[in-house]
Amino acid sequence: MRALQWTGPETVEVNDIPVPEIGPNDLLIRVGAAGVCHSDLTLVNFPIRLREDPLTLGHEIAGTIEAIGSDVTGRDIGERGVVYLFWTCGTCRECVSGNENVCLAAGRVAMPPCPGLTIEGGMAEYVRVPANTFVPVGDLDFLQAAPVADAALTAYHAIRGAQDALRPGGTAVAIGIGGLGHVAVQILNAISGVRVIAVDVAPEKLDLAAKCGADLGILAGDEAAKQILDLTGGRGADAVFDFVGLDATAKLAVETVAPNGAYRMVGIGGGAPEITAGPAGGPGWPWGASVRKSLGGTRSDLHACVALAQAGKIHMEVERFDLTDGPEALQRLDKGQIRGRAVLVP
Amino acid sequence: MRALQWTGPETVEVNDIPVPEIGPNDLLIRVGAAGVCHSDLTLVNFPIRLREDPLTLGHEIAGTIEAIGSDVTGRDIGERGVVYLFWTCGTCRECVSGNENVCLAAGRVAMPPCPGLTIEGGMAEYVRVPANTFVPVGDLDFLQAAPVADAALTAYHAIRGAQDALRPGGTAVAIGIGGLGHVAVQILNAISGVRVIAVDVAPEKLDLAAKCGADLGILAGDEAAKQILDLTGGRGADAVFDFVGLDATAKLAVETVAPNGAYRMVGIGGGAPEITAGPAGGPGWPWGASVRKSLGGTRSDLHACVALAQAGKIHMEVERFDLTDGPEALQRLDKGQIRGRAVLVP
Amino acid sequence: MRALQWTGPETVEVNDIPVPEIGPNDLLIRVGAAGVCHSDLTLVNFPIRLREDPLTLGHEIAGTIEAIGSDVTGRDIGERGVVYLFWTCGTCRECVSGNENVCLAAGRVAMPPCPGLTIEGGMAEYVRVPANTFVPVGDLDFLQAAPVADAALTAYHAIRGAQDALRPGGTAVAIGIGGLGHVAVQILNAISGVRVIAVDVAPEKLDLAAKCGADLGILAGDEAAKQILDLTGGRGADAVFDFVGLDATAKLAVETVAPNGAYRMVGIGGGAPEITAGPAGGPGWPWGASVRKSLGGTRSDLHACVALAQAGKIHMEVERFDLTDGPEALQRLDKGQIRGRAVLVP
Amino acid sequence: MRALQWTGPETVEVNDIPVPEIGPNDLLIRVGAAGVCHSDLTLVNFPIRLREDPLTLGHEIAGTIEAIGSDVTGRDIGERGVVYLFWTCGTCRECVSGNENVCLAAGRVAMPPCPGLTIEGGMAEYVRVPANTFVPVGDLDFLQAAPVADAALTAYHAIRGAQDALRPGGTAVAIGIGGLGHVAVQILNAISGVRVIAVDVAPEKLDLAAKCGADLGILAGDEAAKQILDLTGGRGADAVFDFVGLDATAKLAVETVAPNGAYRMVGIGGGAPEITAGPAGGPGWPWGASVRKSLGGTRSDLHACVALAQAGKIHMEVERFDLTDGPEALQRLDKGQIRGRAVLVP
Repeated sequence: MRALQWTGPETVEVNDIPVPEIGPNDLLIRVGAAGVCHSDLTLVNFPIRLREDPLTLGHEIAGTIEAIGSDVTGRDIGERGVVYLFWTCGTCRECVSGNENVCLAAGRVAMPPCPGLTIEGGMAEYVRVPANTFVPVGDLDFLQAAPVADAALTAYHAIRGAQDALRPGGTAVAIGIGGLGHVAVQILNAISGVRVIAVDVAPEKLDLAAKCGADLGILAGDEAAKQILDLTGGRGADAVFDFVGLDATAKLAVETVAPNGAYRMVGIGGGAPEITAGPAGGPGWPWGASVRKSLGGTRSDLHACVALAQAGKIHMEVERFDLTDGPEALQRLDKGQIRGRAVLVP
Repeated sequence: MRALQWTGPETVEVNDIPVPEIGPNDLLIRVGAAGVCHSDLTLVNFPIRLREDPLTLGHEIAGTIEAIGSDVTGRDIGERGVVYLFWTCGTCRECVSGNENVCLAAGRVAMPPCPGLTIEGGMAEYVRVPANTFVPVGDLDFLQAAPVADAALTAYHAIRGAQDALRPGGTAVAIGIGGLGHVAVQILNAISGVRVIAVDVAPEKLDLAAKCGADLGILAGDEAAKQILDLTGGRGADAVFDFVGLDATAKLAVETVAPNGAYRMVGIGGGAPEITAGPAGGPGWPWGASVRKSLGGTRSDLHACVALAQAGKIHMEVERFDLTDGPEALQRLDKGQIRGRAVLVP
Repeated sequence: MRALQWTGPETVEVNDIPVPEIGPNDLLIRVGAAGVCHSDLTLVNFPIRLREDPLTLGHEIAGTIEAIGSDVTGRDIGERGVVYLFWTCGTCRECVSGNENVCLAAGRVAMPPCPGLTIEGGMAEYVRVPANTFVPVGDLDFLQAAPVADAALTAYHAIRGAQDALRPGGTAVAIGIGGLGHVAVQILNAISGVRVIAVDVAPEKLDLAAKCGADLGILAGDEAAKQILDLTGGRGADAVFDFVGLDATAKLAVETVAPNGAYRMVGIGGGAPEITAGPAGGPGWPWGASVRKSLGGTRSDLHACVALAQAGKIHMEVERFDLTDGPEALQRLDKGQIRGRAVLVP
Repeated sequence: MRALQWTGPETVEVNDIPVPEIGPNDLLIRVGAAGVCHSDLTLVNFPIRLREDPLTLGHEIAGTIEAIGSDVTGRDIGERGVVYLFWTCGTCRECVSGNENVCLAAGRVAMPPCPGLTIEGGMAEYVRVPANTFVPVGDLDFLQAAPVADAALTAYHAIRGAQDALRPGGTAVAIGIGGLGHVAVQILNAISGVRVIAVDVAPEKLDLAAKCGADLGILAGDEAAKQILDLTGGRGADAVFDFVGLDATAKLAVETVAPNGAYRMVGIGGGAPEITAGPAGGPGWPWGASVRKSLGGTRSDLHACVALAQAGKIHMEVERFDLTDGPEALQRLDKGQIRGRAVLVP
């Protein structure tokens, strides 16, 4: 079968490899669509080769059950679904609490095992997945379903974790209206009553935000913080979601989050917020505000996102590519030229 | 009446001033005891004079109602109580939600009005207070009651805000076993089932922590982070409360908080934690962990702290000073020589 | 001034009475609109006369500040707003926690003091209100604003208290699409991602529900429970809000709430749900489901509701009556002939 | 091997049966101890025979791993642990949210599959269990560990679900100081700062409650409700946990729960609380109070309970019986003659 593989720093190839074999608790999925994520770029552009063998990319996977392991119950061949992206121990204190994204087995700072990043992924005709990672999607279009498995999931997790701050009358800011940000705007509208302000460097991304239901759009730049403070009576936003994660966006978040507000770092651009334990009247970090570095989501979050997509409450803006055009999709994403999410179809 | 007043940078005097007059919604309190706080030092040592007139210090106030304003209902002369330390608008969105410590009227980064810091305070024989800041304490000893009004309140607020992370089987770290830290250890024992690790530079402070119920004590230093990680199976602590707030303690917190854990900055030493939005495998800040800069507490928290003190679930370690010895108490606090809390008695 | 007054069992009159005087912490409100509520009927139809003097009705009040008490700060003549309906002590443990609707001063089973029910109310040209009950509404139409003060508030409070159960993919049922129910449907859409099923005895009320955004409408009757169970895969609804409160609606709620679901009794029709502590396999009450009798809302909830109305996320269906036609409005409400909310204009 | 089996209404026998075989995802546990629960009695005394074959009793199981299925990873022979009592689907919306006790696969009102009640249980020398139900207990005594698996778990789940109501200064009532109640008192002390009032018909059970840390003990009877109201200033208790579930205890709970309080039905005696949707001033059910019928606990709760037991924060009062004396243990439990929990040792 064909598979899009990472073979070394900045090298991606479409190779012909065997269809994977499955174990007794696995499923074989015939891939219907696989989304392209910024974290794919982070891996592909990593300056050193992390392993000998090529790695099939793809952690945003939708498809159909083609074969079922001998010990699996409750699943049928032909079922359509998406794949939960963290393949965790399932028995630790965090996993049994529904916090699989911080599974103890992953250690303190690492990410749990993830197809396409540390295990063979789904940018291929078929992929092997543990049976308990499969979540049915009914007849949801695979082009819509694939980005649910990470773009929507990650946005939803960050928003849900800030939900206490998202009361009607409040304001949320979404920085970066790409694959995650454009879904975040829709999720905020669907599950909270707050006003949504979108921020991006590109006017066309603000157009997309408006289409997704943002109440206001602000161009990134020197004036953005002042504009947000003006719009909130000097108070700042009850939640700021940074889907970029550069120094500039971290600065904007610190300057615009409200007291008791939630600043969530989702994009992994390496930016550093200036936060200190100084007394009042010091730099701009307000009392009671919190910053949190959010990672993916939980299986429960994935169920919620599938439901939102099935109900039409979120709709992914998608650019479709053939699997063999995967390298081009990655390049265009790197240049910021994708509107919404790029999705590969084998 | 006598009052301990700040008259300029590093200058504190006991002066004779008139007993304050009260308005129709005020109470006149005959002060029973007033605690001495690190934030008093922060003010006293402030390098420039912030106002013309002397300011009576003291925001940790316990006493007896001596006179009642004409429009006040539901209070009696002779009632004993403590004074809530933020004198807020009472009508904004935050105040009516029980979040008075982030009252909108205070703006984005300032603290709400506070006796002893921005209004005439309670290190005096009498103090005027708004009637709605009074919380009865029954027959609780004033030496115990005064520190409840800030030391316990501030520790409790930080802990309550992290309560979701404090499940049985988890671990909390308290850095700095002074006025706040020694109460925090007791509050953690009273309202959560976690193991408590105390950290301090002084062995005698660890003795105090042990007396307060800490399960383990660790001397601050190069080995502290490793010790905490070893004690938590490499995972880190579910919550880290930093009652110091220097660069060194911020570093310890960043290196030892667990994924999804809560790091709370309570001490205002100006330290800066190194947190970035980088990908996994970068510096030590784990996924899902949050940092929050906590400010005092709410009126509801004060009721809870009074109840804990009345039930004997928390007990303040106190050093008693005459009001006229206030300058000495401040000096000894500055040198780290107070065990628990210094309390002035007029 | 003219005022609509209850003068005895089933007797309501428009009387000419003096404009109220205000105390130092009060406001005088020139009433712009006052909503008519089922609880007005409960009072009016009460079989015995509860007090000597006539009582001016009206607890759903919007208007303009006409005069300001001498000790009030932060308010201006001419400000437009609504009045929070519980006039509570403001200092008890519950009030300072933002739970004014269960103020300790009211005792265990009584409602806190409420204009129009136990104090002179707002179905008049002017009304005296405590200054801290006033919440600004900007330029929101008074016909919209008045029902926010109770119909929206009460619906919002019940929904917010069940929010943990309202995850995307879930289902909520609203029974009774009257003054509260038609707003509840809109609030559910605004702040949760659940599917909303409306139930009513009248087809035209289901039409109103559909206009308000309900996903499905079901006619009350023998088949309703089965229909709801069929629509939820036999599981039941994650939340059931009963805005009627008769035996029949209580039965429907018990039979259709899901495990861990929330059944909220809002309507006060006196119905009794059959709930027992029996083992599994007994009658229809599922494991983990909760029932709660909801009362009005909090001041924080009122701020949220005003924000939802200002943002256009909720819109009250209103029938306008002159104040002098108040008796007719009450009669029509009693017969179930009001679409949405009846609102009186002085 | 020997096994205690239910063979028909009111019939229990010790039989010799084969050691169970295990599947690829199972463990074979050599039973160290198995607790005796009131729900065992409910089953044993059930008036009709529910199945042809004898059923081995026992859902409160502690033991050692004797054999490991071929597909199981992460477990070692010789590990000591307890068994989670609901054997659920693991993939539904509730299971992945950590709410296994209301697994969708169980339907709306049934309990999920449970060893000893619907599957072969652990009152035997060996028991087959799904690998993911095993929770390690380190070197905790099996006599202590077994009751953790249900008595502590069920009490903890009920308490955790009411934790929002359990603030310092509040009061909790535990009705019935048997196997669950005596642990509940300890859990309340360990994870909340509330005052604990124990209620029982037997003075010696109140002695046990006092030993477990209850602040007050009240004999059940006509005066109990009045005593609780007097102790709470007429307000009632913030939470009432009914571990009995008869009409009399339901009545006590309804009469003593506070506004916004939590009444949790844990015991399954079939009692019915009188709750109505009537207006204020009606019968005793206060505004905002909730009633919930609690079932067992979650896997996450079981981890928490094991941690509490390992830390010595809870200690089960245990009466030890040989497995062959199981029938006698059941009889004595039926007569209310067990102090704490009866535990069988094979």
